[in-house]
Amino acid sequence: MIYTALIGHGVVGSGVAEIMTKQEKKLSESIKEDIKLKYILDLRKFEGLPYSDKFINDFNIILNDDSVKVVVEVIGGLHPAFDFVKACLQKGKSVVTSNKELVAEKGYELIKTANENNANFLFEASVGGTIPIIRPLTQCLVANDIKEIYGILNGTTNYILNKMIVDSMDFDTALKLAQNNGYAEKNPASDIEGLDACRKICILATLAFGKHIYPKDVSCEGITNVTLDDVAYANNFGYVIKLIGKAAKEENGKISIGVAPTLVSKDEIISNVNGVYNAIMVKGDSCDDVMFYGRGAGKLPTASAVVADVVDCAKHLGARKYISWEDSEEGFITEPLNSISYYVLCQNNDFSSLKNSFKDIAENVVKSNINEDKNEIAFITKPVSKDLLNNILNSIKSNSTKTYKII
Amino acid sequence: MIYTALIGHGVVGSGVAEIMTKQEKKLSESIKEDIKLKYILDLRKFEGLPYSDKFINDFNIILNDDSVKVVVEVIGGLHPAFDFVKACLQKGKSVVTSNKELVAEKGYELIKTANENNANFLFEASVGGTIPIIRPLTQCLVANDIKEIYGILNGTTNYILNKMIVDSMDFDTALKLAQNNGYAEKNPASDIEGLDACRKICILATLAFGKHIYPKDVSCEGITNVTLDDVAYANNFGYVIKLIGKAAKEENGKISIGVAPTLVSKDEIISNVNGVYNAIMVKGDSCDDVMFYGRGAGKLPTASAVVADVVDCAKHLGARKYISWEDSEEGFITEPLNSISYYVLCQNNDFSSLKNSFKDIAENVVKSNINEDKNEIAFITKPVSKDLLNNILNSIKSNSTKTYKII
Repeated sequence: MIYTALIGHGVVGSGVAEIMTKQEKKLSESIKEDIKLKYILDLRKFEGLPYSDKFINDFNIILNDDSVKVVVEVIGGLHPAFDFVKACLQKGKSVVTSNKELVAEKGYELIKTANENNANFLFEASVGGTIPIIRPLTQCLVANDIKEIYGILNGTTNYILNKMIVDSMDFDTALKLAQNNGYAEKNPASDIEGLDACRKICILATLAFGKHIYPKDVSCEGITNVTLDDVAYANNFGYVIKLIGKAAKEENGKISIGVAPTLVSKDEIISNVNGVYNAIMVKGDSCDDVMFYGRGAGKLPTASAVVADVVDCAKHLGARKYISWEDSEEGFITEPLNSISYYVLCQNNDFSSLKNSFKDIAENVVKSNINEDKNEIAFITKPVSKDLLNNILNSIKSNSTKTYKII
Repeated sequence: MIYTALIGHGVVGSGVAEIMTKQEKKLSESIKEDIKLKYILDLRKFEGLPYSDKFINDFNIILNDDSVKVVVEVIGGLHPAFDFVKACLQKGKSVVTSNKELVAEKGYELIKTANENNANFLFEASVGGTIPIIRPLTQCLVANDIKEIYGILNGTTNYILNKMIVDSMDFDTALKLAQNNGYAEKNPASDIEGLDACRKICILATLAFGKHIYPKDVSCEGITNVTLDDVAYANNFGYVIKLIGKAAKEENGKISIGVAPTLVSKDEIISNVNGVYNAIMVKGDSCDDVMFYGRGAGKLPTASAVVADVVDCAKHLGARKYISWEDSEEGFITEPLNSISYYVLCQNNDFSSLKNSFKDIAENVVKSNINEDKNEIAFITKPVSKDLLNNILNSIKSNSTKTYKII
């Protein structure tokens, strides 16, 4: 008999308890041994559930029960999650989490602790919710040198942008709708300002490229400045605007990484990822393009990924899964070196001077939209270096300029 | 040191040899032990390769070398592949294959043999080429009851249909182009008649639903009857035609399964899977929709999936991976029970009688295209039962009728 314990009975936690209870027989069959949820740590009481007898409010009961081999942490946030997880790993218990903040900030330390104690620390649900991505990246694509990895990593912002694109709904209205539908928090900052996506691309980049990349070192821009005008210009140029987290191995071996609103060609399959869905594209030297798509959040979708990790831990008690996650390294992150295309929006009350200066940069422009009513010009550049882009921006007479990259 | 052997140095085999040689250090690091390709069995000689010294032409050298722990079979076809694989498993060697015919026809027997001899039999590359699907299906989605699984499982036919859809190229020209580009065999029958896709949906359905489903028991229709007219009607109705393999768990617990040209709404993400790419959609009770996308064939993409399985075998020497694959069961397969929509094309030289009879069934039609020039009517039905569909087809005065399902 393998006993498990659950820390946190919120949205994801209640899903984990539900699946672990409902699918107990199937899960036991899949590991050829009985697996049972023994404790649920939560300060609240939940009456009338099939597993109401399992609730406890003292973490030490889990920590000191040697029969508990796998612990699930789904309370979110850094503390006390980190302290609970570290203590469990030090006791040789394997830990499964969906907590992206914990993994993005403390992944190196916790995987090291797991290794030292012959335990496993798994976190499939921390990126892409239900989407299998961590295991494919670390196992299925092991024969590849990953060249780049990018995707739509936050369902809330994708929902909002989708409403702006399809229904021409403005940002504030779309955000309110997302909140009413339970897709956005009351305080939506970590979603709409890109921090959530940033944590996820840090986890993916670390797995793809081997060294811990911390969110604080990554440039991150959310979607609060994206307007319906941007959406309309992009649409006319053949693109949709998505919040993209991207990491790539540059020719010098360093990693470029960032989160920002990005224009995606309508011909790219990722442009069709709508609503709260996530999608992650991986480009490797042997596999070429591989994409993973599914619900990035939600009770049962996320919980099903957590439970799969629990099963994996239970199958590998005393045996370590090898996840290559080294410490961070000074100078590992760089600016993108390749030339890329940009979307640029320039505004100026003195429209004739804007229009005149626009003529000077015309050779670097492939599509443009000159809007005299709004005193603004939107355009798509040819692939240019960062230096050339700066020259373009400096030579155009704009008192308000916005640039987004194009994938 | 873990030694491996390769049976077959064709397209996929040469890719495996290339990756195993080029990535030897990285692969060894990932399993914390040296892993080396020792033999390549092929009747031909290949001079001037970095691994030309490894070629042998006697299978018994591999079979009787106890230092060889993992054998890769990539010769394709049933014999002698089956005999080689079975003999290796009986000796306790793990085997990796990309051979879908072998897995679809002999999966139950070979997995049983592997289990009895404490070895593993892995076949990630047999479905979807480079796409990680077998491992996600058996591991990542283990906490789900799979409801249905379907997809574009054959790159050749998707390439041809795509040419018909995007470039209005007729079937024969598109097939010839596919052959010239190396996407179709000289004898393309197993691709264009659906057998290749049929083997793959059998493998997926067996993994999703547990019991061996044999290709001979599955209804299978290829794309040779799809015309540019069908493509145009579908386009006008808002659909694209794809060759879809699909398996679903019906309410009575039985499995409906088949391969056929199918209309896919342009709103579905799978409708945007173009060229030789494959995509597989999985619907589970907890995960909802999850999709996997990538190259379904090709030397390095397929080889990279094979090598990932080799690494997995090397990590699990003497430990079994649990794949639930029981023997087949009489009566496990059924017709689809739910009502679904159909695309119907009816032709009749006596067009006025066709048009008159069409009026009688109008209440079951949502979109139609009446083409007097060609004496034909194409239409989309409401969701109807199989019985009601038959009534519709019987009551319409057509001397040539074609029906495709709609997803």
